[in-house]
Amino acid sequence: VPPTWLDLDESPFSLANLPYGVVLCDRLPGRRVVVRVGQQVLDLGRLAERGLLPGEEWWATGSLNAFMAAGAARWREVRARLRDLLVDESRMDDVATALLPLDETTPVLPFDVADYVDFYASEHHASNVGRLLRPGQEPLLSNWRHLPIGYHGRSGTVVVSGTDVRRPQGQRLPDGATAKDGPEFGPSRKLDFEAEVGWVVGMPSTQGEPVPIDAFAEHVFGVCLVNDWSARDIQSWEYQPLGPFLGKSFATSISPWIVPLDALESARRAVPSTTDGGLLPYLREAQPWGVDLSLEVRLNGSVLSRPPYARMHWSPAQMLAHVTVNGASVRSGDLYASGTVSGPSRGEFGSMIELSDNGSLPVQLDDGSSRTFLEDGDEVSITATAPGPDGCRVGLGEVAGRVLPATGERPD
Amino acid sequence: VPPTWLDLDESPFSLANLPYGVVLCDRLPGRRVVVRVGQQVLDLGRLAERGLLPGEEWWATGSLNAFMAAGAARWREVRARLRDLLVDESRMDDVATALLPLDETTPVLPFDVADYVDFYASEHHASNVGRLLRPGQEPLLSNWRHLPIGYHGRSGTVVVSGTDVRRPQGQRLPDGATAKDGPEFGPSRKLDFEAEVGWVVGMPSTQGEPVPIDAFAEHVFGVCLVNDWSARDIQSWEYQPLGPFLGKSFATSISPWIVPLDALESARRAVPSTTDGGLLPYLREAQPWGVDLSLEVRLNGSVLSRPPYARMHWSPAQMLAHVTVNGASVRSGDLYASGTVSGPSRGEFGSMIELSDNGSLPVQLDDGSSRTFLEDGDEVSITATAPGPDGCRVGLGEVAGRVLPATGERPD
Repeated sequence: VPPTWLDLDESPFSLANLPYGVVLCDRLPGRRVVVRVGQQVLDLGRLAERGLLPGEEWWATGSLNAFMAAGAARWREVRARLRDLLVDESRMDDVATALLPLDETTPVLPFDVADYVDFYASEHHASNVGRLLRPGQEPLLSNWRHLPIGYHGRSGTVVVSGTDVRRPQGQRLPDGATAKDGPEFGPSRKLDFEAEVGWVVGMPSTQGEPVPIDAFAEHVFGVCLVNDWSARDIQSWEYQPLGPFLGKSFATSISPWIVPLDALESARRAVPSTTDGGLLPYLREAQPWGVDLSLEVRLNGSVLSRPPYARMHWSPAQMLAHVTVNGASVRSGDLYASGTVSGPSRGEFGSMIELSDNGSLPVQLDDGSSRTFLEDGDEVSITATAPGPDGCRVGLGEVAGRVLPATGERPD
Repeated sequence: VPPTWLDLDESPFSLANLPYGVVLCDRLPGRRVVVRVGQQVLDLGRLAERGLLPGEEWWATGSLNAFMAAGAARWREVRARLRDLLVDESRMDDVATALLPLDETTPVLPFDVADYVDFYASEHHASNVGRLLRPGQEPLLSNWRHLPIGYHGRSGTVVVSGTDVRRPQGQRLPDGATAKDGPEFGPSRKLDFEAEVGWVVGMPSTQGEPVPIDAFAEHVFGVCLVNDWSARDIQSWEYQPLGPFLGKSFATSISPWIVPLDALESARRAVPSTTDGGLLPYLREAQPWGVDLSLEVRLNGSVLSRPPYARMHWSPAQMLAHVTVNGASVRSGDLYASGTVSGPSRGEFGSMIELSDNGSLPVQLDDGSSRTFLEDGDEVSITATAPGPDGCRVGLGEVAGRVLPATGERPD
């Protein structure tokens, strides 16, 4: 990491990171495409106006999609240029006019979400949930080790960190009832979070043409954190035979900062599936794309767990190869999430259904209260960092959201 | 239906219909938003330029989304104005300059698809598939009569009628193998169509606020035909526990003409679920929104079946109420399809898996050949009409597509 004229100290948003986002700022018109440096953001539109950065037409859109669609060569060019500007002291006065204090900005959704896919890539999560939802059966189904299981979620309800989330209502079985008794209607009693990692596609592909696994870094722009809010009671009643639907579709929160793949170089690791001899060729990576991200989940400030992304069975490169192997195309703004990140021990579980054993084991919080699922007013926060070059940490920032009460027992 | 100076004879695209689409035409720049009348289309941008129609800014976008988002009052205003223009002989010369022969135009996707949801609303289809995929078990699961089962599909691979569809490759079990044997990789051997009806959302809703069932016609703009191409072998291997994914995501075709709800007035019927006493209040319709559409499916010109949409268990108003009851919002351009339309008899089945009893019963074509699933080069066409006013028929047009061979046994 080169030295900079900015005072970034030990910040996880140093020159090793340089994540992209979009913010509102009272002093400036419209949505500003920015890069975060420490506790400030650099306004890319302003740099381009002054001739210091290419791509004025990208930054003017107020969204990352256009820049992301420009392709990896342009991503590298802009990243290199930003580093130069922040290292070159002769540019300091000029560049400093494009800096805004982070606390004078409000993040918005950094890109228009095209298709949203959610995977199920943690062996520990899939086993835990299988055991809880299908007791007495083999927890991991027979297809799980052969392909990254996934499904499409609702892209229109993806929101940025800080957006309140209203408790969903819907059909659920009454406590102790069986399917034959039929459902009742009401606010979810098993509202949950899922701590996940999301991958953002930049470069589109062509329908009918699979993306080979080693083209991952040419298509995927970066990474963020995801909270895939889940209503377990709604989900368990509805999900057979076509999968989760209203139990997940009410809201999905993402962190505001999209960390470029280049910032993850020091964090790359092989995933367990890479060494699986039975893997079909299209899922075998020549370059490892597992990533060592250390997540931390807090509920009202109490640390609930520390899920280790490095333990995930499937890498994001395997997921992209799989999602396109049938000829499905990807678009700029596609978001695909890892599924809940859970490690083998309870302190590494990424959801309340696992932490509380589906409600049977209350989790203690620092304020003396306990939880099995989320209560109204609860705030969930997920943060993560990755190892960077020279022993520094690269921050993914935070995805946070507070639970609002349901509007009532019946929709108006 | 008022008389018009156009010669529309018995056309299913008379003044009772007036469906919207978007076309390319060599003689004109860009994408043209048009309304179909008989074998011609009316260029709405041109009418607006001449001051004959409001909404110049909508038509200039080359897509229906902006007009659809303007809301039901504007939809009715434009429809009434178009009728006036086509009835008023004094306007004939002026309006005629905006007419283009249909065969000099090429349809494109009429709107940007936001979220795509696919339901499973035919009792006969759900029972047939349940029986074939889960032999020995109750074919209809216990939740099916309580809620419209659905899931999210891939919006980025929705294509307009006439687009060729490449046979997908993927993981599937070898013939006669069980899950323990593990999968092989290759082109799907069970490529299928699904004859469906699609509903297009115009007016967005707000996240956290359910859309009441009787607000259906304020949000939904119109209807089209859908072919939800399906690879049954890929689907059956992957779909547990999170639902269909790559078995469906490679392509979904829609017809080019979005028929406004107002054109369906004479076709409205109560659906079977309306009279179900056990239905939760949010799914009870005051106004019936079942629709009497007569579908016809052809394979290489041979009629395979005539699925009756009037037999569907769930109406599109029930589907919209359900999809939003948890607070999920809808956007202009959301597409939700009915699921395969199948009636009780074999001649009314809407997919090959049903028509061929999952491959065991070959279906005879007029040319003497037979099919269990689709072969390379096959062309599937789905058409439909609805009863209109004064005994006329309202046409939904056609969704057609041809199967291209897979690119190879392995992606490059």
